[in-house]
Amino acid sequence: MVTNTQVIFSKVPSTFPVSGEHITINKSQFDLEAPLAEGEFIVKTLVLSVDPYMRGRMRDASIKSYAPAFILGQPMDGHSVMQVIKSNSVKTKEGDYLYGMGKFEEYTKWNDKTASEQNLVVRNDPKSNGIPVSYYVGVLGMPGLTAHYGLYAIGNIKKGETIYISAASGAVGQLAGQISKAHGLRVVGSAGSAEKVAYLKEIGFDAAFNYKTDDTDAKLTELCPNGVDVYFENVGGKMLEIVLTHMNTFGRIIGCGMISQYNLAKPEKVGNLMNIVSKRLKFEGFIIFDHPEAESQFLKDVTQMILDKKIRYQETHTKGIENTPEALLDVLTGKNFGKQVVDVANV
Amino acid sequence: MVTNTQVIFSKVPSTFPVSGEHITINKSQFDLEAPLAEGEFIVKTLVLSVDPYMRGRMRDASIKSYAPAFILGQPMDGHSVMQVIKSNSVKTKEGDYLYGMGKFEEYTKWNDKTASEQNLVVRNDPKSNGIPVSYYVGVLGMPGLTAHYGLYAIGNIKKGETIYISAASGAVGQLAGQISKAHGLRVVGSAGSAEKVAYLKEIGFDAAFNYKTDDTDAKLTELCPNGVDVYFENVGGKMLEIVLTHMNTFGRIIGCGMISQYNLAKPEKVGNLMNIVSKRLKFEGFIIFDHPEAESQFLKDVTQMILDKKIRYQETHTKGIENTPEALLDVLTGKNFGKQVVDVANV
Repeated sequence: MVTNTQVIFSKVPSTFPVSGEHITINKSQFDLEAPLAEGEFIVKTLVLSVDPYMRGRMRDASIKSYAPAFILGQPMDGHSVMQVIKSNSVKTKEGDYLYGMGKFEEYTKWNDKTASEQNLVVRNDPKSNGIPVSYYVGVLGMPGLTAHYGLYAIGNIKKGETIYISAASGAVGQLAGQISKAHGLRVVGSAGSAEKVAYLKEIGFDAAFNYKTDDTDAKLTELCPNGVDVYFENVGGKMLEIVLTHMNTFGRIIGCGMISQYNLAKPEKVGNLMNIVSKRLKFEGFIIFDHPEAESQFLKDVTQMILDKKIRYQETHTKGIENTPEALLDVLTGKNFGKQVVDVANV
Repeated sequence: MVTNTQVIFSKVPSTFPVSGEHITINKSQFDLEAPLAEGEFIVKTLVLSVDPYMRGRMRDASIKSYAPAFILGQPMDGHSVMQVIKSNSVKTKEGDYLYGMGKFEEYTKWNDKTASEQNLVVRNDPKSNGIPVSYYVGVLGMPGLTAHYGLYAIGNIKKGETIYISAASGAVGQLAGQISKAHGLRVVGSAGSAEKVAYLKEIGFDAAFNYKTDDTDAKLTELCPNGVDVYFENVGGKMLEIVLTHMNTFGRIIGCGMISQYNLAKPEKVGNLMNIVSKRLKFEGFIIFDHPEAESQFLKDVTQMILDKKIRYQETHTKGIENTPEALLDVLTGKNFGKQVVDVANV
């Protein structure tokens, strides 16, 4: 028997979730020695990812949305890298790294069917290519794919255009900016601290500003003198309202997320929507879970960029699964810097 | 000399324009006998079109938008059918009907260059096919092309889907509904009077309601039990906010116009935008002036539907160019029924 620390969804929050109330830690026991039926295997979680979209899953299960609600009283789940420590499945062998929607607990017993439902796939690349395991839930995981797909499939980015990225130092934004720069765009971003703004300039953004201390409207006028052709929308609310007035004719708004709204009991209304008609804008939302077919090209492209040292990727590592609730809250309030991961085991 | 009655843009309005203040009537003299230089010709206006987008042209000329501002003190212009009454141009001959952006006056002298700038083209079809001349500024003119292009190029309508059309009895909406129905969609519309709602049902809408007396949210729940796949957006504001909650996953919003907002000093803000991301919606604006290439297929399709009596098209005819200001105001307040035209001459 080993202790199995679990992150439990305990209560539906109405605004910001609170650690110890809406998300709690449970210590259960896990029998590593129990015999495995055919197709069963046990994984140990190495690293897990906390992301803004999880706030949407902390809802009453009767409300439908794109990602299933977390189940009250059960461990949360999310993108993780796990290692197989015991297997009676022909699909995985001891030592394999798996990527997919793991449970937020130290040990999980899967079988081939449940593992397939959670899209667990063997991903042993980091064992040999020197890329940190945590990158596989970030720049090479769901957030990275989100940036890559959003820019190409929705944003239709073109050399010489100007892109503006909100939440630009986040898990998605920082990669979106670097891919856009490599593609020949003028890249402008905003973030919520002087440190984050300095980082954006270091990684090649043409310009960046602090939306908390600067006037967004004035800064966009100054930093995007030819207007905005593509807006990578991560924020929503007042930010969107301002950006609409800076969009160029035939501009595209990549509807990736609206983090400013997720914890409001009453989301903000947005003005200036007539710009969508008068400037012939395309505002298109997407959810990366719909596009698994886009993953292989993305992995190929971005792995190579990392190996060629053309991409930098800022992460905040929280140590210990018991600190997962705080890590998620930091993401929702913007306290983290870059991609927030939780190191569950030493790799 | 003949009297040439003109409709003059006199003052920029801040809310609803007022006849006699923002739009005025001028009587000038026109010399029909004066010799014409090479390339010059004189037209008599037969019918002119007043449309919602014209409100956007009644602005200070320093403000850029998709359609040029009207020039203070000058005749307004807009889609018209004109007849050539005298010509020294090889491109037009006496008796030809022309379609394009005519001046809102009884007589105009053009030359080949100015006529080309205003996209005047010879359109003699109504002389022989029995279709009323007024149709060529409505169902076969700019509003008809708007409906056709919006449905196919932006809405990507598919058989079996549900479309909801606001301002459905208007110049664009009534054709959009009938094309959608012919294409195999469930078609639901809203309009602002019992008479208009009855008309929508007569021309084949599966359901229709009065947005002024019915609860839009409840009606959409009742009449679109499988949700809305395509929203033909003519209205904006609160209507858009409600429709967003009825959209299906991967739905399309055809951003054609937002007439509820054009006369507000402070346009309304819109809630529920997070649906664009969570439901992966595409909200795309378009301006039909960008798509002249779409006209020939449209004219072919819709002319045939009219000749086959598969399309009905409601018009309100105002007699006399001097009543143009009231006709435009009626469009902006929804007092008109169907396509509003002004009969300038007897045809």
